[in-house]
Amino acid sequence: MNFDFSIPTKVLFGCGKLDELKREKLPGKFALFVSSRGNIIKDLGYYDRLVQILKYQGIEFLEYNEISSNPTKDEIMKAAQYARDNFCDFVIGLGGGSVIDSAKAIAFMARNPGDLWDYIFTGSGKGLPAKNEALPVVAVLTTAGTGTETDQWMVITNTDLNEMIAYGVPSTFPKLSVVDPDLSASMPTFLTAITGFDAFFHAAEGFIAKTSTPISEAFSLQVMRLVSKYLPRAVQNGNDMEARSNISLAGMLSGMIQSTSSCTSLHAIEHGLTCFHPDLHHGAGLLMISESYFNFFAKYVPDRFIKMAHILGATTDDVPEEEKPYVFVQAMTELQKQCGVYHLKMSDYGITIDDMEKMARNAHKTMSNLFAMDRYPLSLKETVDILTKSFR
Amino acid sequence: MNFDFSIPTKVLFGCGKLDELKREKLPGKFALFVSSRGNIIKDLGYYDRLVQILKYQGIEFLEYNEISSNPTKDEIMKAAQYARDNFCDFVIGLGGGSVIDSAKAIAFMARNPGDLWDYIFTGSGKGLPAKNEALPVVAVLTTAGTGTETDQWMVITNTDLNEMIAYGVPSTFPKLSVVDPDLSASMPTFLTAITGFDAFFHAAEGFIAKTSTPISEAFSLQVMRLVSKYLPRAVQNGNDMEARSNISLAGMLSGMIQSTSSCTSLHAIEHGLTCFHPDLHHGAGLLMISESYFNFFAKYVPDRFIKMAHILGATTDDVPEEEKPYVFVQAMTELQKQCGVYHLKMSDYGITIDDMEKMARNAHKTMSNLFAMDRYPLSLKETVDILTKSFR
Repeated sequence: MNFDFSIPTKVLFGCGKLDELKREKLPGKFALFVSSRGNIIKDLGYYDRLVQILKYQGIEFLEYNEISSNPTKDEIMKAAQYARDNFCDFVIGLGGGSVIDSAKAIAFMARNPGDLWDYIFTGSGKGLPAKNEALPVVAVLTTAGTGTETDQWMVITNTDLNEMIAYGVPSTFPKLSVVDPDLSASMPTFLTAITGFDAFFHAAEGFIAKTSTPISEAFSLQVMRLVSKYLPRAVQNGNDMEARSNISLAGMLSGMIQSTSSCTSLHAIEHGLTCFHPDLHHGAGLLMISESYFNFFAKYVPDRFIKMAHILGATTDDVPEEEKPYVFVQAMTELQKQCGVYHLKMSDYGITIDDMEKMARNAHKTMSNLFAMDRYPLSLKETVDILTKSFR
Repeated sequence: MNFDFSIPTKVLFGCGKLDELKREKLPGKFALFVSSRGNIIKDLGYYDRLVQILKYQGIEFLEYNEISSNPTKDEIMKAAQYARDNFCDFVIGLGGGSVIDSAKAIAFMARNPGDLWDYIFTGSGKGLPAKNEALPVVAVLTTAGTGTETDQWMVITNTDLNEMIAYGVPSTFPKLSVVDPDLSASMPTFLTAITGFDAFFHAAEGFIAKTSTPISEAFSLQVMRLVSKYLPRAVQNGNDMEARSNISLAGMLSGMIQSTSSCTSLHAIEHGLTCFHPDLHHGAGLLMISESYFNFFAKYVPDRFIKMAHILGATTDDVPEEEKPYVFVQAMTELQKQCGVYHLKMSDYGITIDDMEKMARNAHKTMSNLFAMDRYPLSLKETVDILTKSFR
């Protein structure tokens, strides 16, 4: 039992909390306001609400609304230059995981010289130490599940290199995050389901990772409990605010898991898919691989798999000892069926069976740090096998 | 489900973690080094180890080692003046709850004008807003249970006024806390038991408080589970480091409960005892009142009491509905017996039955904020009754 704990983010959580931002001290006077490409955020009225709050607080801001759903290094570098040229003193992001991750990356590059890939730890990144702390980040979340609101991580794609890599330093924790489940109520059914499962996988991976701690374990069990209870309800009825609130809570806790434990190679392997297919949502990619991934790891961490099975409400009493860990995988796929996201097909996104080795190699190269968190060291061949078994 | 979350403290947790302080960035160059009166800390060798670390880091420091076990405002004001006159830029505390609380109070008053009681919210305090942020605080803990390492609270006694009051602002969270269970191994049996129960009561009070949140509840249940499993072992064998580590973990989590929920009037009433009897340890005072306190509240929060009973391993299956909540109180007193701290006597500390009303009045006056956290508003008469039933 030996760990460090640090989650320096202040979170305002609850329905209607966005309005409390009026009274909260913001970490600067002149913001870069980051949001996604397109008009969704404006159409939903969230944009205007936040603008009103910033005006009320006397905050001036510039806008950058060119973030794509898997944000690219080029977008980040352009926005960081814009923030620097205009002397912005903090970054505020309004959107889902891609926007908040981008806000962090922009805030970091606005205060550091050179290229983002100079600092990235893995893949072709040079792993240089950060020169300066990032600008302060305020996150206003419109989805639930990525956990970026309570961790330091950002996932950015370098399209030239086909590398989609997670990066973070202590200063890229948001200073302030608003998690208002009301804002997540507009998520379409499919997005609700796949981002909800992103939270679930953070919890399951964090639980079987080498780095799990008593604190991350408590969060992990709670997240899996919440997702199994409330995600089917949130998917079935997007206006069920009790369900939405509990999934927002699960998402927020899942970020805390990433801050107190780590994801494992499931997240790494998924990056191998999405970096070649930026139209594939991260949560969907995770779902595609999850069954064969957890079937593979069940035998290496049996006790923890059995505990996770119980958390999902399954019983292992009458199951032969060696089959008990696999009960978790059955319960998980059952939950995926309930949420309508079992059997998502790679082929629907243009992935072919011939891509398996390329994607596995990419994952090992770009996200080696997450493979190092596994309790069993996954070889390239085993990674290809997991991907191949996942192919449909 | 509506709450704020903020625990900006970084914690280094684990046996041997004190040595890692060598590599940790400290929040200044010139410290006020605060410890308790007497030679215990020096005799145990902790003092020399910390001095070596500070030297290794090139940190200069001045010492203030006049903190009593229930620290007084006069000690704080004197030390704050000393820190200010010498331009100390952070405060490092080495000791138990009283020392760390004092480090926070000194850090606060070193940067704020006037008297500590100008800022105190309740009792005779003037409730002025803080003018400045406190100096950064580093906490090196030698006990386990107060939770001060992960909250903003300090408890200081104004001896002139007989007021023992908790105070805290966001800047009085320690910047960095070292929770090294090795350092707690030197605690005598009685201190182990009563500080362990301090953690237990933070958890139980935080669980029945109005302010409980899904996060604080997860922490509360975990703390009660850990204390019930490991405190009897730590009391029986002070060298059982698995038990010590888990009690240190419970203590750290119990601070997080105070940062995400709140104590209730049990802590308030205890202040009524200790402010008149500074030789009475806070944890012992809590134990003395706990049975009649929880017996009183059982009927007002029955569901939560039943949940707490189950966490302590008790079953309520064959118990009549209206008696189920009281099973928690039985399980709790059973645990107190196992730890040798059931039936502590007020009369052993010079308290007489005639003091009950005076102490109750004092509690209501000085700690009204905690009475406001109860789910049932406790009257003065009911408070006197709880105290009277506790008198032995």
